[in-house]
Amino acid sequence: MVNDARGTLLAVRETVQSELTSYLTLQREYLSGIGSELIPVCDALESFLLEGGKRLRPLFAYAGFAATGKVATAADIRAFTSLELLQACALIHDDLMDRSDTRRGKPAIHRHFENLHQQEAMSGLADQFGEAAAVLLGDLALVWSDHLLHTSGVENSALLSALKVHDEMRIELMAGQYLDVREAGERSPSVDRSLRIARYKSGKYTIERPLHLGASLAITDEAERKDLTNILSAYGLPLGEAFQLRDDMLGIFDDMLGIFGDPSVTGKPAGDDIREGKRTVLMAMTLERADQASAAKITAALGREDLTADQIEEIRALITATGAVKVVEDLIEGLLSNALTAANSDEIDPSARELLIELATSATRRSH
Amino acid sequence: MVNDARGTLLAVRETVQSELTSYLTLQREYLSGIGSELIPVCDALESFLLEGGKRLRPLFAYAGFAATGKVATAADIRAFTSLELLQACALIHDDLMDRSDTRRGKPAIHRHFENLHQQEAMSGLADQFGEAAAVLLGDLALVWSDHLLHTSGVENSALLSALKVHDEMRIELMAGQYLDVREAGERSPSVDRSLRIARYKSGKYTIERPLHLGASLAITDEAERKDLTNILSAYGLPLGEAFQLRDDMLGIFDDMLGIFGDPSVTGKPAGDDIREGKRTVLMAMTLERADQASAAKITAALGREDLTADQIEEIRALITATGAVKVVEDLIEGLLSNALTAANSDEIDPSARELLIELATSATRRSH
Repeated sequence: MVNDARGTLLAVRETVQSELTSYLTLQREYLSGIGSELIPVCDALESFLLEGGKRLRPLFAYAGFAATGKVATAADIRAFTSLELLQACALIHDDLMDRSDTRRGKPAIHRHFENLHQQEAMSGLADQFGEAAAVLLGDLALVWSDHLLHTSGVENSALLSALKVHDEMRIELMAGQYLDVREAGERSPSVDRSLRIARYKSGKYTIERPLHLGASLAITDEAERKDLTNILSAYGLPLGEAFQLRDDMLGIFDDMLGIFGDPSVTGKPAGDDIREGKRTVLMAMTLERADQASAAKITAALGREDLTADQIEEIRALITATGAVKVVEDLIEGLLSNALTAANSDEIDPSARELLIELATSATRRSH
Repeated sequence: MVNDARGTLLAVRETVQSELTSYLTLQREYLSGIGSELIPVCDALESFLLEGGKRLRPLFAYAGFAATGKVATAADIRAFTSLELLQACALIHDDLMDRSDTRRGKPAIHRHFENLHQQEAMSGLADQFGEAAAVLLGDLALVWSDHLLHTSGVENSALLSALKVHDEMRIELMAGQYLDVREAGERSPSVDRSLRIARYKSGKYTIERPLHLGASLAITDEAERKDLTNILSAYGLPLGEAFQLRDDMLGIFDDMLGIFGDPSVTGKPAGDDIREGKRTVLMAMTLERADQASAAKITAALGREDLTADQIEEIRALITATGAVKVVEDLIEGLLSNALTAANSDEIDPSARELLIELATSATRRSH
């Protein structure tokens, strides 16, 4: 059963990849017709979109559609695929805002264009050019995501129904992103605030809203799908928080975050969240529990990019000693259990249950 | 006649203002429900959107609608208003990319949030926070523009018809923005390349596509409005170039750019394009015509923020001496005349002619 679900999800992921490839080919043709200067834009976005990504949001949209008992067409999967373009915007702008140098082991978009500026000995400031390119490539990916959704070929009634969910999702995303950026400016961490960010960025944007989007394409009447919408929230919101908490753990304790046994699709170096000084729920819980001496050591290490592997190891031990890791693991387990209960409820079409269960366990698995 | 058209446009501008006010009030309620940290986001976007702006794109959309002979409803004007939110995204991201300190005499959005960071003695880097806020506020304005269009209350068939034009417009905008950023990196200016940028950023994005958007809301069948679409292009594209050329002139020779006799709605300090080193058509024509000594002097001045009023005056004289000003004025006159010919063609409903003529003369007027 689980293997069937995994097989289905892998097949959907393949389709998403091929839909992205086709769309980007069309857009390359269009943009290069405007001017050959736009070819590096196409190159960079193709590399960014096609050489990595777990396709989580399209997969959740697929599962939300399946939860209605209907079978998704190629047009529906094209509509789900648009979420990858939205996510590209979020990541490109994220990397710019965080001033991150790399994404999936390659230069981040702003660094890539900064390098291009230097290689071509262009006039002006290379870093300013890189930043401007990242702003615009993110904007373009956002507009493309809309365009792919609109031209997916789904029925007009389905499209109009999806637009409502889609708009709400995007407003929540930008709000969550701002709260996240704002949090980095707080003088001390807060578990409550970090959990709220996790709810908006992961619970809603990554899981709940993609599920709703899928369902809204299958059942266009909002009242008719109300009960299902609620159950998908009961599954998606706790799962989203659990997913974010797992990501917090992986950011400090693990070397690789892969999904479906494919480590090449994504990865972040061990301890990166310490070097970046990321304000995660795990870190807020750690500092809440740490004694003064440990808290001071951890706080001093956060955001220091030059930390050695040994120093990272020391911080890890301090974090574990506070008991925060145990609390987070218990929290993940409880949230996952709530999600699985919702997945097994009667409102979910039996054909979709294994998909939801497979997605939930994959997204929160300790070691991928 | 002309006064009637001006009165109509002023009334539409008032309606756009009140629709923006209502929309922003709703969004403030929504976002402040997520978290009080989002109130400064609402404050900043309200100030940005309500305290200035010529509303050119909604006005051209109105004129495109009127060109069909139909009368726009409140829902239609709400749909036109969405273009102001898109323009807010373009300007906020523009100022960030250009590293401009001010917009309409007030701090640019990234500077405003940088100041907030300092005033509240937040943790982390103030400039990084300001930049991140500008990225996200621009993204949010882009998403809001979509949302306002979708919830404007126009018929579904009109909305679906408008989405197509709208997507094309936004892809062209991002392409034009990238070409503009890329142009700043060229080692020498080019009249052809600068004209192409003017075509995408002003011809298409500011004028042609808003006209098409208006027409697409009134006549939903693409084939049925084909002749009108073509005439609106014949009016909008030359007018857009003329508008950009006038803006080039104002950026160097005038103190104030206002429209409909209301100088408070916008303004740029005299000579700003010289201090910013902007790659305009006027500047490309100047350098093409200048002797070696003048060209060297002008090139050395471009982008120097510390230029005095006397130095600006000297550069102005050098520019005028090349004859480029005369060439640009003649070009504007020719383009405007083409636009006016199109405005008077039979495909345009007589009720819209004076609107189009008033908009064309206002947008290209020497002294507003």
